[in-house]
Amino acid sequence: MYILLKNIKKHLNKTVTLKGWIFNYRSSGSIYFLQLRDSTGEIQAIVSKKEVNQKTWEACEKISLESSIEFKGKVYNEKRSPSGTEMLVEDLKIIQIAEEYPIGKKAHGTDFLMDHRHLWVRSKRQAAILKIRDEIIWAIRSFFKKENFILTDSPILTPTSCEGTSTLFATNYFDKKAYLSQSGQLYLEAMIYSLGKVYDFGPTFRAEKSKTRRHLTEFWMMDAEAAFVEHKENMKIQEKLLCYIAEQVLKNCQRELEILERDIKPLEKIKPPFPVITYEQTIKKLQQKGVKIKWGDDFGGDEETIISKMFDKPVFIEKYPGKIKAFYMKPDTKNPDLVLNNDCLAPEGYGEIIGGSQRIDDLKTLEEKIKEFKLPKEPFEWYIDLRRYGSVPHSGFGLGIERTVAWICGLKHIRETIPFPRLINRLNP
Amino acid sequence: MYILLKNIKKHLNKTVTLKGWIFNYRSSGSIYFLQLRDSTGEIQAIVSKKEVNQKTWEACEKISLESSIEFKGKVYNEKRSPSGTEMLVEDLKIIQIAEEYPIGKKAHGTDFLMDHRHLWVRSKRQAAILKIRDEIIWAIRSFFKKENFILTDSPILTPTSCEGTSTLFATNYFDKKAYLSQSGQLYLEAMIYSLGKVYDFGPTFRAEKSKTRRHLTEFWMMDAEAAFVEHKENMKIQEKLLCYIAEQVLKNCQRELEILERDIKPLEKIKPPFPVITYEQTIKKLQQKGVKIKWGDDFGGDEETIISKMFDKPVFIEKYPGKIKAFYMKPDTKNPDLVLNNDCLAPEGYGEIIGGSQRIDDLKTLEEKIKEFKLPKEPFEWYIDLRRYGSVPHSGFGLGIERTVAWICGLKHIRETIPFPRLINRLNP
Repeated sequence: MYILLKNIKKHLNKTVTLKGWIFNYRSSGSIYFLQLRDSTGEIQAIVSKKEVNQKTWEACEKISLESSIEFKGKVYNEKRSPSGTEMLVEDLKIIQIAEEYPIGKKAHGTDFLMDHRHLWVRSKRQAAILKIRDEIIWAIRSFFKKENFILTDSPILTPTSCEGTSTLFATNYFDKKAYLSQSGQLYLEAMIYSLGKVYDFGPTFRAEKSKTRRHLTEFWMMDAEAAFVEHKENMKIQEKLLCYIAEQVLKNCQRELEILERDIKPLEKIKPPFPVITYEQTIKKLQQKGVKIKWGDDFGGDEETIISKMFDKPVFIEKYPGKIKAFYMKPDTKNPDLVLNNDCLAPEGYGEIIGGSQRIDDLKTLEEKIKEFKLPKEPFEWYIDLRRYGSVPHSGFGLGIERTVAWICGLKHIRETIPFPRLINRLNP
Repeated sequence: MYILLKNIKKHLNKTVTLKGWIFNYRSSGSIYFLQLRDSTGEIQAIVSKKEVNQKTWEACEKISLESSIEFKGKVYNEKRSPSGTEMLVEDLKIIQIAEEYPIGKKAHGTDFLMDHRHLWVRSKRQAAILKIRDEIIWAIRSFFKKENFILTDSPILTPTSCEGTSTLFATNYFDKKAYLSQSGQLYLEAMIYSLGKVYDFGPTFRAEKSKTRRHLTEFWMMDAEAAFVEHKENMKIQEKLLCYIAEQVLKNCQRELEILERDIKPLEKIKPPFPVITYEQTIKKLQQKGVKIKWGDDFGGDEETIISKMFDKPVFIEKYPGKIKAFYMKPDTKNPDLVLNNDCLAPEGYGEIIGGSQRIDDLKTLEEKIKEFKLPKEPFEWYIDLRRYGSVPHSGFGLGIERTVAWICGLKHIRETIPFPRLINRLNP
């Protein structure tokens, strides 16, 4: 049996076996200093010519960057070492000597790193990001489990688009055409009549030609939907979810946040209540900042950045004009030009991570909206059915995972938040 | 605040509010017996003309199947009722009166039910299946969390096929062509050098023209991969996972298993160790049963059914001829015509639910296999790289979720195991 480096302190002054990869090494003639990495930590392994046999020493001389090695030796405290421990090697077994590793010490361009994504993920920084991604996804799923939401996967292959066809990937589906889903929401709405509170969590696709730091063509979304939940309670669920994510990452990913040199103070502020401002107030705030925007305009990435920097917590912007939002959002009875929706912008300039709303539950209103938005009625018949047979007030929201990971990790670009990013000019590896 | 029916027994002899849908009703002239369903249970609500005001009574007369209603009333024990409790209604609020519900008491054909899947999911049976699906997925994810595997989502849009192009869905990807992934395995293999033990969990796609009870065009797969794990340990992980799934469903889904009238005795037998037989032994067993099959043939659905009925636990079949399996499987050193792989067949005739193997870790062997399988080398260069830079022994497996759900629930056809099934002739709703 071999041990993982995260457990090394339990084995001080004992002889153990380690397995991993060499991420750095140097020699002083009679001593090799070999930096070993496994999936849980790092250690310096010392090979002293005096202490090992000829064969072991010769093996040492062959070791290259990223070679896979098994070490046997004694572990001891060493304050000067970054991990606090070192190993004095008694024996080593070469698993494989690596060819010259293409990712070196020198700075590489983004294209080079992205071409070598299958190797780049080994870097301490990329591994830390992907561990935080795992923790965030686990936190989201645990949250919904705790809150008695039931996972119901929405289909990816759909016969129509939810909100327009211009940014859809299409495929031949036997004798038909199918489109890759951009949202599972409409399907979730059907499920609430059976299961009450539901969520889905899967990949979504957008064939957008934009090259921005916030867009991927393939990204993961979590949608939640609940019967008998109205606009205000909907925002409370979102608030609780984001607080839980921040809390869990702060608790379980200290090492990873340190590796990323993430300032955790802003994350520690993610506690309820979050500020809620209306769309109208937001327009005014932007105008005061000198932004050229008027009532009826939607916010772009730049506006989101400005607003999101005004608050030190996520901020809810509610009640947008219905005309610039999706057809299924419920009009505000106090002002039917507005809808009972909200976006949620992450702080520190990160911008939109959630979009949510109460949905139209009245048959006639929905049919009118579909007409007003010039959508074909037939493909939505099943969705309209939900308002014919025991309609109830209900609300939901969608959270973009990669944007959430970028925010929590403090990353500039979304491309590092997913193992194998897909962008307009990037389908490999 | 309203209460959920699963908590009703905590409120005996108290007045509470319930919200839900009417799934059955009858009247005796002066009393209405209304069967209410919410997402967690059922109850009979009694409306007595003597006990309510005129307006409430008149509201009652309008109620139709699947109408959404809010009841206020006192809850009491009633042994003759299936739920053990009843409510005497004091007041009721109609949320929406449903139009004539298309799914009635009479038997409907499969096509009709599938066309109305958005409503069919409300049935007690369908809801129970989907809750068990949720539990199975939660059990799988919890298992991997417990075992320190890290979730790393594999991409859906891929530039090449993993195992041939004849059954792939394709889409235009800007100026390129992309294919919908059939497996995330190759990508997971890259991740083990960074994160040690990883899994993915997402939709996969197969443009197969076959119409069988075991095939969907869109289905969910879980793939796991671990560094330093070899063939035998790989099977142990699979065994542990399947035992955990069965244990968790038996513990947490008693009500749902009862609704499905699932015989739980076979599920209670899902305990280690599982039988392991070789491919060669399996061929002989089939020949003894009179099946026309010879060494070198692969098993079809019929053969799987026969084998799977020979055992009362899942059975591992190991060491298939390399020629009938994927190129990346590691040859058995004792007999290089065989590979260190396994399928796992669920009992009771359910057949294959897992495929796994140790992977080739030697560069030269992999390059030869790619040539032997007549695969283009270029698209696999990144995958071959993993054998150039610190290759290690490693193994993994993939579990099909819908087949697992069908087995655990005891279903004949896989189409009921997913909220919105996609089949060769089915892309709606």
